[in-house]
Amino acid sequence: MSRTTQTAFVTLTSALSLCVALWQPAYGQTAATERHQVNATTVAEGLNFPWGLAFLPNGDALITEKSGSLRRVSPNGAISAPIKGVPDVVYKSQGGLLDVAIDPNFADTPWVYLSYAEADPAGGDGNSTAVARGKLNGNALTDVTVIFRGAPKYKSGAHFGSRLVFSPQGHLFITLGDRYSAMDDAQTLDNHHGKVVRIWPDGSIPKDNPFVRDDGALDAIWSYGHRNVQGAAIHPETGALWTVEHGPKGGDEINIPEAGKNYGWPIATYGVDYDGSVISDQTHAEGTVQPHYYWVPSIATSNMIFYTGDMFPAWQGDALIAALKGAKVARLDLDGERVMHEESLFAELIQQRIRDIAQGPDGAIYLITDDRNGRFIRITNAAE
Amino acid sequence: MSRTTQTAFVTLTSALSLCVALWQPAYGQTAATERHQVNATTVAEGLNFPWGLAFLPNGDALITEKSGSLRRVSPNGAISAPIKGVPDVVYKSQGGLLDVAIDPNFADTPWVYLSYAEADPAGGDGNSTAVARGKLNGNALTDVTVIFRGAPKYKSGAHFGSRLVFSPQGHLFITLGDRYSAMDDAQTLDNHHGKVVRIWPDGSIPKDNPFVRDDGALDAIWSYGHRNVQGAAIHPETGALWTVEHGPKGGDEINIPEAGKNYGWPIATYGVDYDGSVISDQTHAEGTVQPHYYWVPSIATSNMIFYTGDMFPAWQGDALIAALKGAKVARLDLDGERVMHEESLFAELIQQRIRDIAQGPDGAIYLITDDRNGRFIRITNAAE
Repeated sequence: MSRTTQTAFVTLTSALSLCVALWQPAYGQTAATERHQVNATTVAEGLNFPWGLAFLPNGDALITEKSGSLRRVSPNGAISAPIKGVPDVVYKSQGGLLDVAIDPNFADTPWVYLSYAEADPAGGDGNSTAVARGKLNGNALTDVTVIFRGAPKYKSGAHFGSRLVFSPQGHLFITLGDRYSAMDDAQTLDNHHGKVVRIWPDGSIPKDNPFVRDDGALDAIWSYGHRNVQGAAIHPETGALWTVEHGPKGGDEINIPEAGKNYGWPIATYGVDYDGSVISDQTHAEGTVQPHYYWVPSIATSNMIFYTGDMFPAWQGDALIAALKGAKVARLDLDGERVMHEESLFAELIQQRIRDIAQGPDGAIYLITDDRNGRFIRITNAAE
Repeated sequence: MSRTTQTAFVTLTSALSLCVALWQPAYGQTAATERHQVNATTVAEGLNFPWGLAFLPNGDALITEKSGSLRRVSPNGAISAPIKGVPDVVYKSQGGLLDVAIDPNFADTPWVYLSYAEADPAGGDGNSTAVARGKLNGNALTDVTVIFRGAPKYKSGAHFGSRLVFSPQGHLFITLGDRYSAMDDAQTLDNHHGKVVRIWPDGSIPKDNPFVRDDGALDAIWSYGHRNVQGAAIHPETGALWTVEHGPKGGDEINIPEAGKNYGWPIATYGVDYDGSVISDQTHAEGTVQPHYYWVPSIATSNMIFYTGDMFPAWQGDALIAALKGAKVARLDLDGERVMHEESLFAELIQQRIRDIAQGPDGAIYLITDDRNGRFIRITNAAE
């Protein structure tokens, strides 16, 4: 073999090796966990910073993109054109089209609920989290109405919350953020910053909301003292609302928000200074509730579910918390409400920030990733 | 400089560098944790596989060595000659002289309690965990009596337990092991394998022990279905016994053993196969209690305390669990009994298996390490 031939051969071999390396099925992989062997499959990709994910009764998924599009994705990965009728959103920093939820009685009336960053209708430069609903007809929402508008409108691109979950009694919980620079508002009741609110799906206020008889407080408020609550789920046995919120630097929290209670932010937090030299933050404050569980350092909690499917029997009743940091899902093994153990799942399979998590009608676990080329991923049991 | 001189210089420099490297105060170091900056100081070293640690009212520590010696160590690190009167022990594999405890009324009667692997007094080749007590007079134990003898004597070098803690009512809890090859005995009540037992300090049986009216059960049994319980502490607020036990491969557990209850070993465990392919173990079994908390993979839990001192205010009420693996202490931040968070402490400071942990009269945290050159280490608050 001549030197030239040899070089060419080496180059070809290298190129082939590279091709083989690139040719690995990067997103269809298997991993071991403590109790189940799992497969991850990318159902669809090319989603533009997807944020919210909800399943329709027919098995299709509705997925929001932060820039303002709501799309329907079929189980085989076909992505629809944007659904018409979605409200205008403020697409800036953390703001945009955020969560999506399906009415518990969708079969009767096909209401779809959307949370989003809404500009000031009066023309000011502030914005706030709002929630609208519309009826899904084909590829359009009709009868679109705003059922909640965060107050006040505030000039910030940060900390909008905002997950949507229905209580077993049919209330709609909306989780909100403190808007970052307005964090002190989380401790006062004349605004929606740093609150969880509870409304009826038509926007009316439940008569037994905790502050309806307090003239200085906004009637929708359910609980306060939160930072930026981007995850929520209803416990399948107790029916109680659980939430996860981002901490400042460390101190991501799970809470079980009860009516009228104060969850401490910003007067009490487990956020810490990592140099260990000076700890100025209080972890406890009179009249505030300790977190149910917390993370230091932060994992950057996005959303959570309680797993109730048959596909992963060992995970039934567990809380699965998706994380932006570390591209993982934290599994909390629960005995009732008590955390017995934490396991870190899926990080080697995903390698992108995880923005939302849902259990599919098939019992698989679905994730969407926070990326310009966002992926919609199905996690299945490799033993099935 | 001649070549020879140069070589000599380089050699000298290298030797000096080595000396400087060796000269680092390896055991007097500072580390950051989430909430406190800590110093670690070696009080004494040269202990031969120390196992148990207890403080006397005057501030001296009693420390057992597995080979059979009980020594007194002063706060400045002076190690006494072996204290006379200690019972003969079977020093083999995991067996030997194990835990030491001080009578709650030590000022009145200076009883010292020792657990150890005891040969069969009848001359058989079996052994079991036994507990003796004697009065500490100067450098000797007097009036030494065996107050508990595990049954049956069994030929094994493994899983002896055995921590000694006093309940607020003055009972003595003794935590035991399943003797490894006798693991199935943990589910039957005609033996002490895999049990926690409760006796009075003189060896008599409390009348309200759960199985005293069961003819087929040994009267000392408090709880059963344990594997190898090497750690125990009384919760400072509830007065309840907490224990930590080693799991098989993963599945180290904290339990809060209640009278007469079954903690599941070996029919239920969180020990796992790490290949993830086949999980044959049950984590739940009818009639057994779930762990309060568990670790996968194992940290190899040795002993635990609840921290109640003033030196580390942010750790008050927390459970500190010493680990053989990783040379660390797991701090569980508790809200009441509920675990809110786990932090891993001290690993960079210790670098030896940690065999016991105690809170000193000064509020510092003391550790002993499981090594031929075992160390007795004081952890203090670097900010004080």
